[in-house]
Amino acid sequence: MHAIGVDIGGTKIAIGVVDTDGRILAQVRVETNPDDVGSIDRAIADACNALAKEHEVGAIGVAAAGFVSSDRTTMAFAPNIAWRDYPLGTRIAALVDLDVPVVVENDANAAGWAEFRFGAGRDAADMLMLTIGTGLGGAVVVDGNLVRGRWGVAAEVGHMRVVPGGHYCGCGHEGCWEQYASGSALVRDAKAAVVALPHKAGRLLELAGGDRKKLKGPHVTQAAQEGDELAVALVAKLGRWIGEGAASVAALLDPELIVVGGGVAAAGDLLLLPAREGFESQLSALGHRPVARIELAEQGNEAGIVGAADLARR
Amino acid sequence: MHAIGVDIGGTKIAIGVVDTDGRILAQVRVETNPDDVGSIDRAIADACNALAKEHEVGAIGVAAAGFVSSDRTTMAFAPNIAWRDYPLGTRIAALVDLDVPVVVENDANAAGWAEFRFGAGRDAADMLMLTIGTGLGGAVVVDGNLVRGRWGVAAEVGHMRVVPGGHYCGCGHEGCWEQYASGSALVRDAKAAVVALPHKAGRLLELAGGDRKKLKGPHVTQAAQEGDELAVALVAKLGRWIGEGAASVAALLDPELIVVGGGVAAAGDLLLLPAREGFESQLSALGHRPVARIELAEQGNEAGIVGAADLARR
Amino acid sequence: MHAIGVDIGGTKIAIGVVDTDGRILAQVRVETNPDDVGSIDRAIADACNALAKEHEVGAIGVAAAGFVSSDRTTMAFAPNIAWRDYPLGTRIAALVDLDVPVVVENDANAAGWAEFRFGAGRDAADMLMLTIGTGLGGAVVVDGNLVRGRWGVAAEVGHMRVVPGGHYCGCGHEGCWEQYASGSALVRDAKAAVVALPHKAGRLLELAGGDRKKLKGPHVTQAAQEGDELAVALVAKLGRWIGEGAASVAALLDPELIVVGGGVAAAGDLLLLPAREGFESQLSALGHRPVARIELAEQGNEAGIVGAADLARR
Amino acid sequence: MHAIGVDIGGTKIAIGVVDTDGRILAQVRVETNPDDVGSIDRAIADACNALAKEHEVGAIGVAAAGFVSSDRTTMAFAPNIAWRDYPLGTRIAALVDLDVPVVVENDANAAGWAEFRFGAGRDAADMLMLTIGTGLGGAVVVDGNLVRGRWGVAAEVGHMRVVPGGHYCGCGHEGCWEQYASGSALVRDAKAAVVALPHKAGRLLELAGGDRKKLKGPHVTQAAQEGDELAVALVAKLGRWIGEGAASVAALLDPELIVVGGGVAAAGDLLLLPAREGFESQLSALGHRPVARIELAEQGNEAGIVGAADLARR
Repeated sequence: MHAIGVDIGGTKIAIGVVDTDGRILAQVRVETNPDDVGSIDRAIADACNALAKEHEVGAIGVAAAGFVSSDRTTMAFAPNIAWRDYPLGTRIAALVDLDVPVVVENDANAAGWAEFRFGAGRDAADMLMLTIGTGLGGAVVVDGNLVRGRWGVAAEVGHMRVVPGGHYCGCGHEGCWEQYASGSALVRDAKAAVVALPHKAGRLLELAGGDRKKLKGPHVTQAAQEGDELAVALVAKLGRWIGEGAASVAALLDPELIVVGGGVAAAGDLLLLPAREGFESQLSALGHRPVARIELAEQGNEAGIVGAADLARR
Repeated sequence: MHAIGVDIGGTKIAIGVVDTDGRILAQVRVETNPDDVGSIDRAIADACNALAKEHEVGAIGVAAAGFVSSDRTTMAFAPNIAWRDYPLGTRIAALVDLDVPVVVENDANAAGWAEFRFGAGRDAADMLMLTIGTGLGGAVVVDGNLVRGRWGVAAEVGHMRVVPGGHYCGCGHEGCWEQYASGSALVRDAKAAVVALPHKAGRLLELAGGDRKKLKGPHVTQAAQEGDELAVALVAKLGRWIGEGAASVAALLDPELIVVGGGVAAAGDLLLLPAREGFESQLSALGHRPVARIELAEQGNEAGIVGAADLARR
Repeated sequence: MHAIGVDIGGTKIAIGVVDTDGRILAQVRVETNPDDVGSIDRAIADACNALAKEHEVGAIGVAAAGFVSSDRTTMAFAPNIAWRDYPLGTRIAALVDLDVPVVVENDANAAGWAEFRFGAGRDAADMLMLTIGTGLGGAVVVDGNLVRGRWGVAAEVGHMRVVPGGHYCGCGHEGCWEQYASGSALVRDAKAAVVALPHKAGRLLELAGGDRKKLKGPHVTQAAQEGDELAVALVAKLGRWIGEGAASVAALLDPELIVVGGGVAAAGDLLLLPAREGFESQLSALGHRPVARIELAEQGNEAGIVGAADLARR
Repeated sequence: MHAIGVDIGGTKIAIGVVDTDGRILAQVRVETNPDDVGSIDRAIADACNALAKEHEVGAIGVAAAGFVSSDRTTMAFAPNIAWRDYPLGTRIAALVDLDVPVVVENDANAAGWAEFRFGAGRDAADMLMLTIGTGLGGAVVVDGNLVRGRWGVAAEVGHMRVVPGGHYCGCGHEGCWEQYASGSALVRDAKAAVVALPHKAGRLLELAGGDRKKLKGPHVTQAAQEGDELAVALVAKLGRWIGEGAASVAALLDPELIVVGGGVAAAGDLLLLPAREGFESQLSALGHRPVARIELAEQGNEAGIVGAADLARR
């Protein structure tokens, strides 16, 4: 059965028809106006109706950043769009010309599910997905099922505390994992290193056009790939935090696979090898248990569409 | 269907017949010789045979400390008994006069399951059990199912890292949660406080007979219940660590209920109120999500028997 | 012998004649243009010349934020004014109509010295001064002498590391004491608490006019003085960090007195009592040694003038 | 003027005549009975009398572990010998046949002073001495003077807190520098690594005769010198903690030289290079200030005698 997957971003919405092998058969994109929530519903419904004329569709899955109610109909809260207990699924269902279920999912859950079903996790049953871009999102799969939690807000992995009294997070707490394992953390650390270790920061500063404040994540990745000592160390530090935090998750959930996706994955082995090393260095009972694999994500930017569609089918 | 539950401790084995409401209909205890693993199998089988003469039994569940293989037949590793990849379930099955499944479970999982099915968690679907005695064990229930992980070693909650570079754990790592939220941590902190804060430690020292090294957990609990300022603060610190660590688990799993059992639960509200406070103080997105309850366990020392029996039935 | 003290701030310069009892006999203020360093020299010299017509003066002491060379003639580096190895003392000496020594001092050192000589430390020989405003500055007095260090940059107490991997500091490092014991830390913590603990933050938000981003230190102090629970806790946390950090300094220097000055001192006992408690809770060998006193500063905003003048005389 | 230096250890006392260049002209050793404090006084006096027959002596300096009163006559407290406010200097003075001053000093201060006067610090004015054996002791020299503090207990550098909530110290506090930068820390970390990282610990375990509990500091040093990866990492970690902690001291005192002595110094560059790297990585305002040198101590086991003698002369 084909299904439609919808991925609502901050500035645009991607909508596609996905087959049971996770392939996207057709796809459209429309702009988002985050301040006009009604227009979002309408735009999604219009696109679904258009796609449904060309493809037989059995379900619609809608992914967005935020807290989704456990019955998967409602956005309880969203950071970027003005949804507060907003019945997103119900509204879209009322607007489409199809009599199919409309299911809402958290976007990181959807992307993780795509990876689990059709990507790096296709042969796994227990998996932790880490989507590491500006922030650190995730998805947890236990025994083949996506973990949503009692109120639908599970897998907020970025807000596990890894350093008491550590860096402040946008959530108002100190020491969240996201503050150590994210693109923002990489850039923050790089900017600080330019001040603290000026004798090592020449290349980074150069890539930022001489202005420390203009330093971006890709500058650090590029410098690291060139072999710049400080940049390599910064990426490795990020990698170690990924692995060390994952070791705490492994103590709790014993996954067989940890998948690293998102923008920072572009750093490849410069990130992955320290992540594995950090994981192994902190995994409890090493030698008495197998060590989970840590791999890069295989699904690309469409993972949200694919995962949302597939989850809607279940 | 009745089932037999077996709880193998360091020095004795408890074996009971458990009905489908979690009641123990009959129970026996035998001594353990941890150095003679064959004698353990035999003692368990004998007791099962005897109990099975009086009660109709459909399954046998065996709980013990250690790592259990994911197929629930084998003790992969145990800290106190000389099991290494030992087919405990198969051996017992071969020795009993019954043709019923014999299932092995981790003891903390079994105890947590009893709590989930018949105790504080009976109305919950997503629960975290914390069994806090000398160490910190646990069990994780997601959507009504016990989480065992890929290799059967999930729910080692005590080995989540909560303080990088923190107290060493018996597992060889620094900063494990168990080193902050356990009876051992309470005693260690109390002994240290006697040295660091001598002007506040009079009552604790008195209860220990004047010898700091003889201080035990119950001394601290007793002094706290008497209102001794230092003891109250020590129990509260333990409580806060329970709650703060649980907030990290909640970020990952979004449980509706966290149950605190084990010896330290004797401190009651002196422990529970700071645990709730610590949890709330560290829970990400407070105000945008419900707050999980934190309650004391209701099942007593027989939880292992009850949970093992019930899991064997499933 | 009277001396002139000069205190160069970010936007204005205060210049006064100070007698040997630390009293200011006359004082003038002029504006600073931080981008025109020559104009600063000239303005100071003019004011000195004018004051010297009315008062007999034997020395000129000039205090400013930044690193002062160990021979006390040169500003090696300043954070707010464009001095880099700038011979500030020599320039002023060349411009004044007086044949007296012109001595440059770090402003926190000068303020601390005034406190040592004429304020809370007048009876002490070993003192730690903590000037806690936006940042955390300090001065160290050992056996009656100001500690300047080999290169004149001692007493940068705010940059002792108190939390590895902790909050980033403007210096590019993580976990500096200044990030835990300063007005900026108080405001940062308060802003975060408004997000993390919304149910407790009503009064703080009200004082900030409903906009979390407009929260200032005096709002927190005011709310604390009104008895607001969250604000009291925030000020107490700041106080504890003052005391706990001071305990590390005491391990090194064994002062008899720690003086707390700067803007946060306005919180009075709400700050001081937790500071003493934090100090005592972390002081090594309590019971085998006396406990240093922690007191509020007695010198006001003119401490820089008074201290600079007095140091110039020595 | 020659002086006698006395170094009272846990099991023996070393007594020597020291000339003004720090050379030992004659030396004797006697056994200590730590439970009979009177016998210690007598043994020291006898040895002094004997030495004074051969050498003209102008002062006696006595060094011991513990807190010395600020007038340098009394042991206020000692960890290993039953001194509590014991007038050690006065007693010895009464027992010797010489009319010379008898001065008591803390043993780490004495050793640091020898290093300052005749060893690695002979050309310095501001120095931090770190004596790193089982524990971490130290001495602080500011502007050519030994810093004793108000009550004689300065330079307890090992008890600066470097990790809140970190490893417990014998002093009853958490996170003391001594718990990260000492031979005991090295051995503790090595023992833990054998458990946590069994695949890397082969050589260490071999040197300990296959028994993790028998691992000693020299095993780690030896393995590191052989190039064993884990041992090199363990020594480097110790070195980094030396350097990172020293950076906090440098923020406060701006020394020109940090001297590393004691048993761990045997590791040489394996320790020193990471110490320098750690120091530089954490030194605030790098690029705006010179970087203090970190060097190995030059004085050997007799440093206590030499320093005690030299301090007694002053």
